[in-house]
Amino acid sequence: MNKDGVKIVTIGGGSSYTPELVEGFIKRYDHLPVKELWLVDIEAGREKLETVGALAKRMVKKAGVPMKIILSYDRREALKDADFVTTQMRIGRLPARVLDERIPLSHGMIGQETNGAGGMFKAFRTIPVILDIVKDIEELCPNAWLINFTNPAGMVTEAILRYTNFKKAIGLCNVPVNMVAGFAKMLNVDESQVTMQIQGVNHFIFATDVFVDGVSRFDELLNQYAHLKPEDTIQMKNFVSLPYSPSFIKGLKAIPCPYHNYYFFTKEQLEEELEQFKTGTVRGEVVSKTEEELFELYSHEELQEKPEQLAMRGGAKYSDAACNLIASIYTNKGDIQYVDVRNNGAIADLPMDSAVEVACRITANGPQPIATGTLKLPISGYVQMMKTFERLVIEAAIKGDRDLAVTALNMNPLCPSDEIANTVIDELLEAHKDYLPQFFNK
Amino acid sequence: MNKDGVKIVTIGGGSSYTPELVEGFIKRYDHLPVKELWLVDIEAGREKLETVGALAKRMVKKAGVPMKIILSYDRREALKDADFVTTQMRIGRLPARVLDERIPLSHGMIGQETNGAGGMFKAFRTIPVILDIVKDIEELCPNAWLINFTNPAGMVTEAILRYTNFKKAIGLCNVPVNMVAGFAKMLNVDESQVTMQIQGVNHFIFATDVFVDGVSRFDELLNQYAHLKPEDTIQMKNFVSLPYSPSFIKGLKAIPCPYHNYYFFTKEQLEEELEQFKTGTVRGEVVSKTEEELFELYSHEELQEKPEQLAMRGGAKYSDAACNLIASIYTNKGDIQYVDVRNNGAIADLPMDSAVEVACRITANGPQPIATGTLKLPISGYVQMMKTFERLVIEAAIKGDRDLAVTALNMNPLCPSDEIANTVIDELLEAHKDYLPQFFNK
Amino acid sequence: MNKDGVKIVTIGGGSSYTPELVEGFIKRYDHLPVKELWLVDIEAGREKLETVGALAKRMVKKAGVPMKIILSYDRREALKDADFVTTQMRIGRLPARVLDERIPLSHGMIGQETNGAGGMFKAFRTIPVILDIVKDIEELCPNAWLINFTNPAGMVTEAILRYTNFKKAIGLCNVPVNMVAGFAKMLNVDESQVTMQIQGVNHFIFATDVFVDGVSRFDELLNQYAHLKPEDTIQMKNFVSLPYSPSFIKGLKAIPCPYHNYYFFTKEQLEEELEQFKTGTVRGEVVSKTEEELFELYSHEELQEKPEQLAMRGGAKYSDAACNLIASIYTNKGDIQYVDVRNNGAIADLPMDSAVEVACRITANGPQPIATGTLKLPISGYVQMMKTFERLVIEAAIKGDRDLAVTALNMNPLCPSDEIANTVIDELLEAHKDYLPQFFNK
Amino acid sequence: MNKDGVKIVTIGGGSSYTPELVEGFIKRYDHLPVKELWLVDIEAGREKLETVGALAKRMVKKAGVPMKIILSYDRREALKDADFVTTQMRIGRLPARVLDERIPLSHGMIGQETNGAGGMFKAFRTIPVILDIVKDIEELCPNAWLINFTNPAGMVTEAILRYTNFKKAIGLCNVPVNMVAGFAKMLNVDESQVTMQIQGVNHFIFATDVFVDGVSRFDELLNQYAHLKPEDTIQMKNFVSLPYSPSFIKGLKAIPCPYHNYYFFTKEQLEEELEQFKTGTVRGEVVSKTEEELFELYSHEELQEKPEQLAMRGGAKYSDAACNLIASIYTNKGDIQYVDVRNNGAIADLPMDSAVEVACRITANGPQPIATGTLKLPISGYVQMMKTFERLVIEAAIKGDRDLAVTALNMNPLCPSDEIANTVIDELLEAHKDYLPQFFNK
Repeated sequence: MNKDGVKIVTIGGGSSYTPELVEGFIKRYDHLPVKELWLVDIEAGREKLETVGALAKRMVKKAGVPMKIILSYDRREALKDADFVTTQMRIGRLPARVLDERIPLSHGMIGQETNGAGGMFKAFRTIPVILDIVKDIEELCPNAWLINFTNPAGMVTEAILRYTNFKKAIGLCNVPVNMVAGFAKMLNVDESQVTMQIQGVNHFIFATDVFVDGVSRFDELLNQYAHLKPEDTIQMKNFVSLPYSPSFIKGLKAIPCPYHNYYFFTKEQLEEELEQFKTGTVRGEVVSKTEEELFELYSHEELQEKPEQLAMRGGAKYSDAACNLIASIYTNKGDIQYVDVRNNGAIADLPMDSAVEVACRITANGPQPIATGTLKLPISGYVQMMKTFERLVIEAAIKGDRDLAVTALNMNPLCPSDEIANTVIDELLEAHKDYLPQFFNK
Repeated sequence: MNKDGVKIVTIGGGSSYTPELVEGFIKRYDHLPVKELWLVDIEAGREKLETVGALAKRMVKKAGVPMKIILSYDRREALKDADFVTTQMRIGRLPARVLDERIPLSHGMIGQETNGAGGMFKAFRTIPVILDIVKDIEELCPNAWLINFTNPAGMVTEAILRYTNFKKAIGLCNVPVNMVAGFAKMLNVDESQVTMQIQGVNHFIFATDVFVDGVSRFDELLNQYAHLKPEDTIQMKNFVSLPYSPSFIKGLKAIPCPYHNYYFFTKEQLEEELEQFKTGTVRGEVVSKTEEELFELYSHEELQEKPEQLAMRGGAKYSDAACNLIASIYTNKGDIQYVDVRNNGAIADLPMDSAVEVACRITANGPQPIATGTLKLPISGYVQMMKTFERLVIEAAIKGDRDLAVTALNMNPLCPSDEIANTVIDELLEAHKDYLPQFFNK
Repeated sequence: MNKDGVKIVTIGGGSSYTPELVEGFIKRYDHLPVKELWLVDIEAGREKLETVGALAKRMVKKAGVPMKIILSYDRREALKDADFVTTQMRIGRLPARVLDERIPLSHGMIGQETNGAGGMFKAFRTIPVILDIVKDIEELCPNAWLINFTNPAGMVTEAILRYTNFKKAIGLCNVPVNMVAGFAKMLNVDESQVTMQIQGVNHFIFATDVFVDGVSRFDELLNQYAHLKPEDTIQMKNFVSLPYSPSFIKGLKAIPCPYHNYYFFTKEQLEEELEQFKTGTVRGEVVSKTEEELFELYSHEELQEKPEQLAMRGGAKYSDAACNLIASIYTNKGDIQYVDVRNNGAIADLPMDSAVEVACRITANGPQPIATGTLKLPISGYVQMMKTFERLVIEAAIKGDRDLAVTALNMNPLCPSDEIANTVIDELLEAHKDYLPQFFNK
Repeated sequence: MNKDGVKIVTIGGGSSYTPELVEGFIKRYDHLPVKELWLVDIEAGREKLETVGALAKRMVKKAGVPMKIILSYDRREALKDADFVTTQMRIGRLPARVLDERIPLSHGMIGQETNGAGGMFKAFRTIPVILDIVKDIEELCPNAWLINFTNPAGMVTEAILRYTNFKKAIGLCNVPVNMVAGFAKMLNVDESQVTMQIQGVNHFIFATDVFVDGVSRFDELLNQYAHLKPEDTIQMKNFVSLPYSPSFIKGLKAIPCPYHNYYFFTKEQLEEELEQFKTGTVRGEVVSKTEEELFELYSHEELQEKPEQLAMRGGAKYSDAACNLIASIYTNKGDIQYVDVRNNGAIADLPMDSAVEVACRITANGPQPIATGTLKLPISGYVQMMKTFERLVIEAAIKGDRDLAVTALNMNPLCPSDEIANTVIDELLEAHKDYLPQFFNK
């Protein structure tokens, strides 16, 4: 660590999330003194970076903390001697996301950016870039921690862990913190009192125990959850708000995360998304509009704080979670956070060297996963299936292997048939051609 | 073993398959001297048993072998000192199967008797009965081998292995022998020259290596399989004949069994079945008609052999496989057969004490599974998912636990949503009420 | 937990360690308000209990804390509604320990109370008693935590975990805290800054990583350790002070605990103990004398604090570690401590349901083991061997099975031959006959 | 396979075992038509090779089979297009073995060529040579099977499996066939009727089940074995003939192989070997003398058959086992043989990619290991320990790493202390310097 203050580099700095990140560092300045925050982006994102960077500078100024905001279009210059690198870039930007969603839907398949056909192609676009970033880090700031929140965060993390020698990569998602918030509300306690045991992979986790002040209140919570009203489900922007049946929850003895809707309410979720498809309101399209509005807001000179509207963006708490993680590493805090890390036996029946999303004790040496035993029986097979899907996608991403892509998609329950898998993959390959050199330049 | 000739007891003796079984024993009489073949059924099946039993007697007489056919309605009397017990009963008979198929279809879900909603309810009806039979065996013929070919054969076998102390239960299916036959044809060799390595569970196996005279020709076969014409797929009665895409097979590096159509051609298979649903020709309805015709045939006094038409029934080779298995145990032959047995590490990442369907060396001490290592990566997650489904179904069957049933069905990719899972299960519970005391008499 | 202050029950309260325990509770009173400390012993130990109990009362009085000391000879009365139960009894008292050591030595085998022939017989005497205590706890204070520091602490803990349904048992040893202290000294930092990753079973652990303020300094420490002078080894009372060779440590890439001397300096350790055998100074004999002196001290009315001499006893830090553990559970502290708990995958290649000694995060819900991955290769086999020895000993202890005892001892590298195993076991069975009803009253 | 007859290359062809090998091929000529048998040796072994080669030619001539014996000092010339390669060379010849045994004994440690200090150094000398041979095979006869019976056969096999891409290596030992012979005698049946389940690694296996005509008779055998007289133990040249105690065998529920004497009768075995040390009759010395006598015999022109005296050599049945293995591969026999192969889950708790010694079905595609489940509990730890020892030795052999060598030896229960480990290793390194370039030329 730099002795005289922490140097942080944010790749994809022009993201609309950045103000939350800046706010997070400002409010933690007493125990996490950030000397320099480098916001890095590519030339194509210059306009956004300038806008968000200017806002960041105004925020810092208003807060009166000696944190330097530096805008850069030269990743390598920025990385030099960094203590932490955060990655939040979106290869192909939002238009690519819209394609990830619309093309599968045009063939009757849910397309989403976490683990279906959309997530697969987001992985295909992102993994080669992240591996390049890791190469730079190994050369320019080998002791830095890499905190990735580019989706699919789990696959991106596993790609680094399996295909490089770099060990200090951590994946981060806002799903677990949102679950904590939801459970706290249900149990009528403060979020800070709640910790969870979770088992699964990114965007496919189940809470298998929930503690208040360290004491399990899972049986009580499970019972509440089995009898939830629609309006009390953990709300996320992209989902139908349907509570699971009491039987399902009681048989499961675990609480699914919101993204499980894709798999356990496939029919209803698909119907809703097909409607959005028709009206041009798939998630990527909605988000594009929100982003425009946000950037309009950000450009106002008088704005000197993170605007309220950002919370509507969908990725709320993402950046705050990142700040929390960085702070706990910096201070060797030893608190529990939920991140994507090398399994190392934490989930005994998943591969030792795969990424999993579990509760970890955060130390100066990084996250130490708490052992959870084997996967609880009812969730076991489905989590295994998702991990296999991830591993196939990662291998296909690295090798540019269309066969593996088809096989991976066939192995995902959202895929209606081998024939459709082939069609959708061909169309997505063509649509994202510019970002997929590994598939085309062989 | 009885010194003066083998005693075999067939429970569900009135089945239309029985003539194949009888033929199997007749043609193996030189090395498998069956002294007594007891055909056992319940009173409700008296008419069928009388018909098929009379045919069996005529067959034996014509063949001129000293094998005694004995019809019985008293299971316990029959079991006394048996050497082998085969089970081929169908609780609720074909009308129950029709319900297993039609009720899920009425809600847009494939219903089939191996591992979907239909297979689940067939397990619910069968498992309590098989456990009763095992109790009788433990008392009356504890050294007998139990060969089960009542579906779902894998779940029924695992139920015995997990919930009783009886170790000599073997599950049997005709899928592997049909795969061997298909591969032999593709490679233009005799079936007897072909052996396979398979990984999976009953009705969900993949060929992961194929040998001709002991030498692997898998790469060649895989390549052929990747470029199959529809008419060259391994034909089974209940499936659309669609070849998988070249990419899928090449990425998979394994050959699916015909039942995988349900999962990898879900859309097309469902469309076809919905058509059958409308026209009253779901599989159970077709089979009912075939059975009527068969029994009509069987009742002809002049018929003294297994009629050709039985081969059309769909379960062809089932009974022959059973005879083969019995003969190899009796003679300690050491040949390779494909059966459902305690895993014992044969598939390293499935539970040691679960039933798996793998290549086994058949000895007087029973089947010895050949170690196959871990599941090949591309098939790994899906096989795990199916095993989890099976384990949940078995536990639900034993406990009469509706919650677990709902959870199990939600975990099966054929299920479109939690809501439909609940509806279908409620209707099937009601429809099969008489055969499901464990769910109703608590 | 009792709302108005914690109730603690110490079984084997007459132990010479008790003053350390009392001191530990006194100095933690601000965050661990112990309302009642029940010191329980058997009639045969009345004299000791009265002496140590009187001292305890004087200590409390002097400290001015409102903690009530209650002496009891009725375990069941004491246990009623306890929050924590600590067990530190010694079945057969020190004379039994002397026999555990001298009988094996008389046949040229190291006899010690952790995991050789002596440890085996201490397990045989203790396990039936602890299972009785657990039965009482389940009835009288089912929510209490049981903290056991009766040796062999690992086997005793595993016996409870495997043979009862009681989950809240934790084993405790002073070896890890002594290692922390030693490492802190070597690295010239405060003990409170040091945490470790350890792998192994009780009295057979290896440090596989060591952190200062969360940052690994293991490579540096390993290098120091590889070039240690005898006087700098972690000193324990019962061992020859020999440093391991540089090659051994460098090849091992792990730091053994002091008890490994038995296995890696067998020759030298045996020679020393044979000398003690001749001169009547085996560890048990030395300790007997120390105890006499301690009790003489304790009986002085003017003594109102834990005397300095207790630190010489050998088990120093044991009781303090217990107080620390209790305090962290009570306050849900989340700090790292090293205890014997259900593995739950923390060491991926040891049985899930065995006890292991690892770093755990201590919470109100008990210790959460940190995942350590598989055993580091160089230590893997030996740790596995010790765990097998433990499992065989436990099973022999429960069943009173002499055959298993002989097999277990043969599997321990300290045993020179099957013949000697049989002889030593016969003599020890005879010597401890009164405490081994399970072997004699069948 | 060569179409017109099998080509076999024997490296170390000048061994005294060769006549048994030649006899083995002669008597199997009808189903294993060996066209060419190349006996390859190094120049230093010319005299022996000429002698044994001449005998081989006389044997073939007398038998009247058209098998060509070719002597060669050019390994690469010989290997061209071979079908099978057998390796039976001894790097450093018998004088090296004498040092392997005498140097450890001079420090009070058993030195033997399977898995103690001696076996370690035999591995150090052999592994680099075998890896060179494999390189030649990959280039010159990539489809050949390599049958290794150079000791330590298990470690040599694992070195190939882990450190090369060559898959067709099989290790072979005469211990299992001698166990079969012994059990057959005890059960009063023919050897051909007996098969075993074994678990373990080379020279450290346990019979965990024994079948006669496929039916288990293990309980009966175990009972006999528990009450064996010394003269009825499975006799091997190098061991004290002590039967294990009834308790040990009954607790073990497995039958150790003769080499277990080193570990379970360490004291008695060491005493006997120390006596031999004094009298110059350690095993290597005795064998040297036997060899001289054998070669004297072999040189007699009138000798045209394998002489009876060879059976006394100690390695009897080794070569016959090799012929059996080759014949079964060639004919795709499917019989059970006991070889060292990639585990692949056959022993569920040993590493998948380690070599284990288990019952395999021998096919044209090589040995298929039968799944045995997890290691039986009583033998589990010790087998794990031996596998760890092997893995450390192999890694040390490849890397020339003295630190790992010291660590490995410390991990072997035969080693009395770290200090002696260091001394013995230094002396053995010096003694074998010429054959250990990897340790000296770095």
